[in-house]
Amino acid sequence: MSITTSLAKIDTPFLLVDKAKFDTNVAFLRAKLAPHNVILRPHLKTVKSIAGAKHVLEGFDSPATVSTVKEAEAFADAGYTNLTYAVGITPQKLPRIQALLNKGINISILLDSVAQAQAVTAFCQAQNIKIPTLLEIDCDGHRGGIQPDDTRLVEIGKILHQGGAELRGVLTHAGESYDCFNKAALVAAAEGERHAAVIAATQLIASGLPCPVVSVGSTPTAHFAENLDGVTEVRAGVYTFFDLVMAGIGVCKPDDIALSVVTSVIGHNEEKDWLFIDAGWMSLSQDRGTQSQRQDCGYGLVCDSEGNIIPGLQVIGANQEHGIIAAVGSDIDRITDGMNDGLRLSDIAVGTQLRILPNHACATAAMHAGYYVADPVQIELDYWARIQGW
Amino acid sequence: MSITTSLAKIDTPFLLVDKAKFDTNVAFLRAKLAPHNVILRPHLKTVKSIAGAKHVLEGFDSPATVSTVKEAEAFADAGYTNLTYAVGITPQKLPRIQALLNKGINISILLDSVAQAQAVTAFCQAQNIKIPTLLEIDCDGHRGGIQPDDTRLVEIGKILHQGGAELRGVLTHAGESYDCFNKAALVAAAEGERHAAVIAATQLIASGLPCPVVSVGSTPTAHFAENLDGVTEVRAGVYTFFDLVMAGIGVCKPDDIALSVVTSVIGHNEEKDWLFIDAGWMSLSQDRGTQSQRQDCGYGLVCDSEGNIIPGLQVIGANQEHGIIAAVGSDIDRITDGMNDGLRLSDIAVGTQLRILPNHACATAAMHAGYYVADPVQIELDYWARIQGW
Repeated sequence: MSITTSLAKIDTPFLLVDKAKFDTNVAFLRAKLAPHNVILRPHLKTVKSIAGAKHVLEGFDSPATVSTVKEAEAFADAGYTNLTYAVGITPQKLPRIQALLNKGINISILLDSVAQAQAVTAFCQAQNIKIPTLLEIDCDGHRGGIQPDDTRLVEIGKILHQGGAELRGVLTHAGESYDCFNKAALVAAAEGERHAAVIAATQLIASGLPCPVVSVGSTPTAHFAENLDGVTEVRAGVYTFFDLVMAGIGVCKPDDIALSVVTSVIGHNEEKDWLFIDAGWMSLSQDRGTQSQRQDCGYGLVCDSEGNIIPGLQVIGANQEHGIIAAVGSDIDRITDGMNDGLRLSDIAVGTQLRILPNHACATAAMHAGYYVADPVQIELDYWARIQGW
Repeated sequence: MSITTSLAKIDTPFLLVDKAKFDTNVAFLRAKLAPHNVILRPHLKTVKSIAGAKHVLEGFDSPATVSTVKEAEAFADAGYTNLTYAVGITPQKLPRIQALLNKGINISILLDSVAQAQAVTAFCQAQNIKIPTLLEIDCDGHRGGIQPDDTRLVEIGKILHQGGAELRGVLTHAGESYDCFNKAALVAAAEGERHAAVIAATQLIASGLPCPVVSVGSTPTAHFAENLDGVTEVRAGVYTFFDLVMAGIGVCKPDDIALSVVTSVIGHNEEKDWLFIDAGWMSLSQDRGTQSQRQDCGYGLVCDSEGNIIPGLQVIGANQEHGIIAAVGSDIDRITDGMNDGLRLSDIAVGTQLRILPNHACATAAMHAGYYVADPVQIELDYWARIQGW
């Protein structure tokens, strides 16, 4: 039985992982970083799956990043022991961090303010524990974090170090690298990220504070960093699946994308030359991350049932359980004239399975309880359940 | 213990239903339609919850609409017997419909093409069952459906009626009513929806075909219909919660919105005057439905921990687990000058709970496994689990 036959038996819409592409993507970044003296700490917010993490991490003590306490708890329960919770901490979440530390999990938290540092040290003192804590550094004005040359950095570091927490180092994320569109800009973003983290670490060390961890990362910068001097670890998440936003930036090609939504054709609007599918935003997500890129891919590009991109087609609209496919851009004439291998939208019959490549893998995956996984070395489909909630 | 105290114990982010507002919204539409001789068939794709449906439907035989076969199965298992699956059918899903019919569930399916009608009749003949089937009518060029005066309507009706299915009637949805911004346009959209459905029904009946059901609906048209002559049932979904899109159209006021995401403050960016919260698109959704309205509400409006709107604040950005709140528009000076009851963003302390009103209730609710429900007549919070998947 072929994979296509197996897929035809599953009720659409559902998430599909092309395991061969996934493994290639995972191996590529590992090999890319191997010559540098850094740890790779994959961000599991993308795959968000115990079964999937096994194919991203090398062992139970491999470093990993999480975006929710729920993920930390789930990965800890599955045996993973080395975690960074890379979202600014709120005091209410500290008891759950404490419970993880008490179980022997090496988990770091993140913060960027005096108020948070005071809350953390008050908690550490009250509970008589040392919570490993990273300082968030702003490397590109993207969101939060302390400027690397801001004197508050040392002030907050001292509150933590002298107040009973474990000051573990600095962490930064070049969120603005998602707006880069050529290699020079990506290389510069990576260098900016490194530079900010190293300047911050230098400032802490010069003040007599510890800074064993210097953590940087985003999928674009991880792939384009040329120099990682002074950096101890690199984080990246979406590189495992890749997506159309990453293809638009130039970090991958559309054919490298390992994640798609499998959908069935439910109808046509012949006047408008629209094809309707049973994948709306409920399964595709509402992510429009390619909207500001050179090629706007709508709500996703369209592949046939075997995963080959059908040039010129896009999901141009998405309601809750309906997607609308149409021909767009320079390929529109080829489609509407039936010149694209003779394809006309009205020839794609009701019930036909198609695959939709996502703009943003994290967002599309988040709409599903799990992934069907097609591995060419085994005929049976695998299933990876996702971690849900907070 | 007050509700606010109960909420403070739940880890953020989470969904909250204001049960008093919810009940008012449910009762309002019921009362609005009472003078008309029509059935209300609520669309459960919004609340998507067995526990929640009990507060929308009057009994187990009450008519209801669903958007997935999974919903149909879940509501049937819970005892509900009168369902319409209002998304165009694909042949692969027919065995699950058959299983529901065999359990005694009165479920209708929907289609708008010869190809679908032929697939349904072939299935009915092969399985020796009569599947109740509605014809989807296009009343406003929104998406799919048959034009009410298209001769294919009778052709498809005959395929079904003579081929062994049960032709149950016509169904239309004024999706374009979401783009109306004044009462006259909403009244006209409702009348256009009614008119299309009645013309289609008349065409079927004139051809000797049955048409017992004439189904119309959307939340805007359901609230503004003045004449429902010839209509047998009205569908609406988001009216139960309401949301900022509906407030923008003028169907409700922001204060009527019964759904919010409760979140905690995790930090500030003092230079940019931004407040960070632990609700990103993972909990808010990426819906930007108000973007094209007169008041763009970003990713949602901001309320204090008791649910009172803080004027001038919006969630202006959303990453996976981070939301960014800032002052916008005409209120920006009042906020930044601390004139809004003395409010400055930097005064809202780390850990403070806020509530975010959603652009689109269906989309925001879809990001969560369930709702916490605050009912003023009981101190304990209730929890309504949501149905997930397809």
